[in-house]
Amino acid sequence: MNPRIKKIHGLLKEKKLDAFFVSSAHNISYLTESISRDSFLLVSKDGCVYFTDSRYTAEARGVLGRSFKIEKIVDSIFRSLALACKRENLTNIGFEEAHLSYAAFKKMRKELPESLRLVPTRDLVETLRQKKNANELARIKKAVGITVAAFRYAEKILKPGIRELEVAAEVERFIRYQGALCAAFDIIVASGPNSSYPHHITSHRKLRNNEPVLIDMGVDYEGYKSDLTRTFFLGRITPLYRRVYAIVLQANQLAIESLKIRARASEIDNVARGFIAGHGFGEFFGHTLGHGVGLEVHEAPRISGKDSAPLTSGMVFTIEPGIYLPGKFGVRIEDMIFLTEKGVEIPSGSLDK
Amino acid sequence: MNPRIKKIHGLLKEKKLDAFFVSSAHNISYLTESISRDSFLLVSKDGCVYFTDSRYTAEARGVLGRSFKIEKIVDSIFRSLALACKRENLTNIGFEEAHLSYAAFKKMRKELPESLRLVPTRDLVETLRQKKNANELARIKKAVGITVAAFRYAEKILKPGIRELEVAAEVERFIRYQGALCAAFDIIVASGPNSSYPHHITSHRKLRNNEPVLIDMGVDYEGYKSDLTRTFFLGRITPLYRRVYAIVLQANQLAIESLKIRARASEIDNVARGFIAGHGFGEFFGHTLGHGVGLEVHEAPRISGKDSAPLTSGMVFTIEPGIYLPGKFGVRIEDMIFLTEKGVEIPSGSLDK
Repeated sequence: MNPRIKKIHGLLKEKKLDAFFVSSAHNISYLTESISRDSFLLVSKDGCVYFTDSRYTAEARGVLGRSFKIEKIVDSIFRSLALACKRENLTNIGFEEAHLSYAAFKKMRKELPESLRLVPTRDLVETLRQKKNANELARIKKAVGITVAAFRYAEKILKPGIRELEVAAEVERFIRYQGALCAAFDIIVASGPNSSYPHHITSHRKLRNNEPVLIDMGVDYEGYKSDLTRTFFLGRITPLYRRVYAIVLQANQLAIESLKIRARASEIDNVARGFIAGHGFGEFFGHTLGHGVGLEVHEAPRISGKDSAPLTSGMVFTIEPGIYLPGKFGVRIEDMIFLTEKGVEIPSGSLDK
Repeated sequence: MNPRIKKIHGLLKEKKLDAFFVSSAHNISYLTESISRDSFLLVSKDGCVYFTDSRYTAEARGVLGRSFKIEKIVDSIFRSLALACKRENLTNIGFEEAHLSYAAFKKMRKELPESLRLVPTRDLVETLRQKKNANELARIKKAVGITVAAFRYAEKILKPGIRELEVAAEVERFIRYQGALCAAFDIIVASGPNSSYPHHITSHRKLRNNEPVLIDMGVDYEGYKSDLTRTFFLGRITPLYRRVYAIVLQANQLAIESLKIRARASEIDNVARGFIAGHGFGEFFGHTLGHGVGLEVHEAPRISGKDSAPLTSGMVFTIEPGIYLPGKFGVRIEDMIFLTEKGVEIPSGSLDK
């Protein structure tokens, strides 16, 4: 049996649950070790049932291992679930409270017999997903490698007159030829004052001389994501930009240097945030320092001042301090970090910053 | 005041609600007439509060009209919502039961005073969104136009040896230069037997001679989407493919011919489904005939055998019959339809099929 399903079996025992109903596509992808969409999974002591609709059943049969029984959803997922629960004599099942809408919960409650207990669970699979295995690290490393190449490619085509969306077009084409499945999220190309919006929507604006360009991008390699940011400058760098850039860069480096297993996420956030605040730019760094990356671009752990849990081996996350001066410009420098038994590895380390 | 908000005011009165809490990004985009992300909206008699985090406040200030008060989320959205409810003396609010997780609902319930009644609502904004105005139709038409051009471009580069992902790369680049913000969804390029999976994940497979290639793609133009499918053939067409193609094409045409205002969606679905079944391929057409398109690629109305509501003026939807022969190939022909007072308009009509 697949070791991830084995872990769920352990959790079922621990939580005295008969079965676990999984509704998050990413969690299902993780447990089935495949790319899953529009599906549901029921893991019980007796086996795994993979529910999907007619668009995917044939594909699923080719991809999933023998331990998954594929069932076509006919009427509604909850009708199918009710039948499976009856067949397996389940008396209580855990469900993912963060991945089921209030409406879906109501429907589920209505379709299942009253005697069946529904137990809200939280982050069961997400917690497992934090510890990446060698295979996952290899895919993420590949995703980061493609992104690093894409930044080098982007740097070559940046010039006054080209539009933000055109830069995105060229880079997106490039990553596909490098073997990426697609971009991990809409590529952000933010020029001039647009860079002061941390999550700018890439626009038709033309790049201009004597302005910065912030690029935030990642790719999907066999389901695993990357996420990196670099900020470039076209033409003559202004003293304010130079100063802000140096502060962000040092915050990025200090945070990375202070990383080690068992360090708390909040400590790392504080290092970068304290440094930026110490230089008078604290109010211009509004977002958290980083986030986990894996099957999702944003997943556990969060690297924020509120997260005091210690960082553990196998974690993959970003370190991305930024300073955003409204109406002027923004600078963000985002790296990706592997925390392993051997120490800190920076797969994006070869990319200039 | 913006007419969409006015309609919500009417609904509030009708449903005896003090306010409406909107958590769907697409519904917020619709009501604010902007592209909205990571935000929430509270519409009450007294005004609209737009909640977002520090990454977006500056951008929102530049984009939203004066009728929206922008509030930065500090701790959690539900803490901010509680303060707003108190400030405005609200005694009951509607929320979107399909767009709030069970976990979020629990949090909301906990943060808000017990005396405040929470009323689940469904499809309030989605129903309004079905009737597109001239401005929306113009954007969708532009999105369809870019997609039509992209199909013509794609047809030129299809040849044995090119990989599915490379076709996607070239087409994605092309649409950005045509003014699209991005692809509306992961472009599907499905060659040979891959075309028998209705929602194939575009792969590294090389196109081969004497095989079909199915391309399903759409673009995002200023937030509005398109969605079209064409199936091509490289080389010598087999008699089975020719037969299947002709049946799908005729099903597509018959369905479109039977469209008119007040027709039921289920009737249209039946026309295409009956025709395909009549030729013995009924079991190979598993999905519904079509779906609405607008701010989302899939939105109301559904064109399925289960939807007996009449089609009304202003609706935009797809007609996309398909036949998928497992392990062999699939054919789908998808057009987009505008249903207007003047009749049926097919913005993708100029594209060969």
